[in-house]
Amino acid sequence: MLYAVHMDVQIPHDSDPATIDKLKAEEKARAQDLQREGKWVHLWRVAGRYANISIFDVAGHDELHGVLSTLPLFPFMEISVTPLAKHPSSIK
Amino acid sequence: MLYAVHMDVQIPHDSDPATIDKLKAEEKARAQDLQREGKWVHLWRVAGRYANISIFDVAGHDELHGVLSTLPLFPFMEISVTPLAKHPSSIK
Amino acid sequence: MLYAVHMDVQIPHDSDPATIDKLKAEEKARAQDLQREGKWVHLWRVAGRYANISIFDVAGHDELHGVLSTLPLFPFMEISVTPLAKHPSSIK
Amino acid sequence: MLYAVHMDVQIPHDSDPATIDKLKAEEKARAQDLQREGKWVHLWRVAGRYANISIFDVAGHDELHGVLSTLPLFPFMEISVTPLAKHPSSIK
Amino acid sequence: MLYAVHMDVQIPHDSDPATIDKLKAEEKARAQDLQREGKWVHLWRVAGRYANISIFDVAGHDELHGVLSTLPLFPFMEISVTPLAKHPSSIK
Amino acid sequence: MLYAVHMDVQIPHDSDPATIDKLKAEEKARAQDLQREGKWVHLWRVAGRYANISIFDVAGHDELHGVLSTLPLFPFMEISVTPLAKHPSSIK
Amino acid sequence: MLYAVHMDVQIPHDSDPATIDKLKAEEKARAQDLQREGKWVHLWRVAGRYANISIFDVAGHDELHGVLSTLPLFPFMEISVTPLAKHPSSIK
Amino acid sequence: MLYAVHMDVQIPHDSDPATIDKLKAEEKARAQDLQREGKWVHLWRVAGRYANISIFDVAGHDELHGVLSTLPLFPFMEISVTPLAKHPSSIK
Amino acid sequence: MLYAVHMDVQIPHDSDPATIDKLKAEEKARAQDLQREGKWVHLWRVAGRYANISIFDVAGHDELHGVLSTLPLFPFMEISVTPLAKHPSSIK
Amino acid sequence: MLYAVHMDVQIPHDSDPATIDKLKAEEKARAQDLQREGKWVHLWRVAGRYANISIFDVAGHDELHGVLSTLPLFPFMEISVTPLAKHPSSIK
Repeated sequence: MLYAVHMDVQIPHDSDPATIDKLKAEEKARAQDLQREGKWVHLWRVAGRYANISIFDVAGHDELHGVLSTLPLFPFMEISVTPLAKHPSSIK
Repeated sequence: MLYAVHMDVQIPHDSDPATIDKLKAEEKARAQDLQREGKWVHLWRVAGRYANISIFDVAGHDELHGVLSTLPLFPFMEISVTPLAKHPSSIK
Repeated sequence: MLYAVHMDVQIPHDSDPATIDKLKAEEKARAQDLQREGKWVHLWRVAGRYANISIFDVAGHDELHGVLSTLPLFPFMEISVTPLAKHPSSIK
Repeated sequence: MLYAVHMDVQIPHDSDPATIDKLKAEEKARAQDLQREGKWVHLWRVAGRYANISIFDVAGHDELHGVLSTLPLFPFMEISVTPLAKHPSSIK
Repeated sequence: MLYAVHMDVQIPHDSDPATIDKLKAEEKARAQDLQREGKWVHLWRVAGRYANISIFDVAGHDELHGVLSTLPLFPFMEISVTPLAKHPSSIK
Repeated sequence: MLYAVHMDVQIPHDSDPATIDKLKAEEKARAQDLQREGKWVHLWRVAGRYANISIFDVAGHDELHGVLSTLPLFPFMEISVTPLAKHPSSIK
Repeated sequence: MLYAVHMDVQIPHDSDPATIDKLKAEEKARAQDLQREGKWVHLWRVAGRYANISIFDVAGHDELHGVLSTLPLFPFMEISVTPLAKHPSSIK
Repeated sequence: MLYAVHMDVQIPHDSDPATIDKLKAEEKARAQDLQREGKWVHLWRVAGRYANISIFDVAGHDELHGVLSTLPLFPFMEISVTPLAKHPSSIK
Repeated sequence: MLYAVHMDVQIPHDSDPATIDKLKAEEKARAQDLQREGKWVHLWRVAGRYANISIFDVAGHDELHGVLSTLPLFPFMEISVTPLAKHPSSIK
Repeated sequence: MLYAVHMDVQIPHDSDPATIDKLKAEEKARAQDLQREGKWVHLWRVAGRYANISIFDVAGHDELHGVLSTLPLFPFMEISVTPLAKHPSSIK
């Protein structure tokens, strides 16, 4: 099942830089693992913002929530989720 | 160059049904042509709404506007465009 | 899979009353069929508004869209969809 | 009387982790007590967000406010309340 | 049980004036009946707008919806409902 | 002159609890004095939120501002004010 | 008592031009009468919009509503009202 | 004096096509005259929307309003205006 | 040239009180100087809020920005600016 | 390719002034370099706000994101990006 997910990251300005750097590295590793597993099928940067638009392909809502809520930067993200259905004009 | 495009369709309730049906058929044909040309690379239905989330891959802003503004249902669409950059965590 | 769905109905004031009455009767029959089939599991009226909050239990996004987009009053509804996951504090 | 309640939780990033963990454990215990008492009749996680959609069945506005305002995480929640009436198409 | 209700009236400009005048007269009569019955306990005009802020005292959500949804101008109103609980600082 | 006032209270999470408790006690005493003086004529809790909807009856805008801006919790409140006129359908 | 009033005018595109021209002439005459009476003390055009920002000086909310709701273009206006108090830094 | 102006055009679907075509031609001619006069210094299409972002250089607010409010498509435009000052980091 | 300016002040709760008191005194002195110079022609308090609605009469956008951005409380203000043109119905 | 970019700067009130001054100086130097390189083609101050409206001319989304995300004040900016196409009425 496909989901469009918009993630907007806001790092509080008084965070500890070393902690944040570590979280970012963990986030990157986790994002790449999920891509290799075929669950995070697209990951694009929103030009000009610390934000991304992503497409996830997972078994359902529970797996999606499990994946998103355990991202290392989850506490600093504003996330919106849009369930995607097949479009009748799509040729795929 | 990639763009995320959100299209929300609102057909006025007092439109002529035959005219609208014709426009919808033309829209579908045009959407499929653009997919075959590799310009409309993803087309998903927003579940529960007369709306779609799409990814376009075109030469630039002018081509994008040319494509979108000549869609048969363009006069009935509310469209928002998000330019997409490469994400440093993407493995593609 | 569970979805919370908010439907807000706006009948254009210059609609034909007989047509609308017919659509409302069809909507009611369809809503009751879907409840009996166990797909529309809760249906509540938002007090003071021509709107409802509903819970659907369907196989996935495609089935949800199929159900919602064929409701007789769909052209007059503003719909928002929220995918629901299991809550860790729920005892069900 | 039924109420749909949307709770969005925002833990300030500089909170003491031990204090928050204790509040979360108390929140879970309280939520499960209220479910067993039949007052918190549904509790769903909004997929991808630290938020829930809940249905409460209580005697009235005063009891609802008493329940919500004494939740351990209440100071960190943004809450909206929607009173629910019986829907004429509901078969329950 | 008390509810604060905000009603915003929008008469479509191409409505039949005689029909609207009749609805307004019926609305006024109904509003005054409900006030005499003690259900519509306060009715104030929002200065500068075709809108009111009202307080209703009814048995619950079902009665509130019954009262509001049968107001003659209901089809032309945007309504929001706020359930009111007792305030600990109120001396009443 | 009547005013509807909506007050939404947000206590910063890192405030000193003793200071806040003292402000809340002063707020309560001040609110009850103003009620006894007939200036704060209604005070209701918005169910589920740290907020109230109130009706003030004061000589005019200057007195209203004087009353609201000297409330002990004023620095932590988001306030909106709606001037209320007599409604032609009110029987009072 | 002073009020800041923002009026945004939206003439439906299918209105009868002669009727609208007549209403606009009546509106202008009424606005000038109210200025001469000292009730409509400032009237400015919002640059680039069919809108104005005005200051009214009237006895109170009832008079304000009486003045605004009888403006010939009132049915086509979106109006917001802000009650103005004396500012402690004003030298007037 | 410089102003950023955002114009969003909405042609009602039941307008007479010949009238609209005539207005569009007049709008284009007027826009080009104003560009040649050096008053409409930049005119860009917002990609994917029937909208533009423009920069005007005129004597002041009155001239700006005169220019915008006499555009042939003005009745169908939603316009917002932002006054632009010199930026201390600009090298122009 | 006239501008309507709305200023909304938000003092962070953990600011140093003495610093803020000093800034407020400087703000008041500056506001009164600008009024005496005829540049800040109206200054009204928004009743119930720490906010003001003001009218400025300055040479242009650069002077307006210079005045506003050097107000002592500028870092704590949310400001919106509306350029005002002469209204055809104004008798001034 | 042209982009309109709106940047709104919010410096947290408890930042270290020396650090911020250094960042502002670096931001200015970087902005001027980018202007000299022809990438930041217009830079205007929004009158009355710590914000700017800018036009960038870069190779595409990736370069735009590279430029914006490395601005020294980027962590304190709210940025929105609008891709600009050629307008058919532009004479350039």
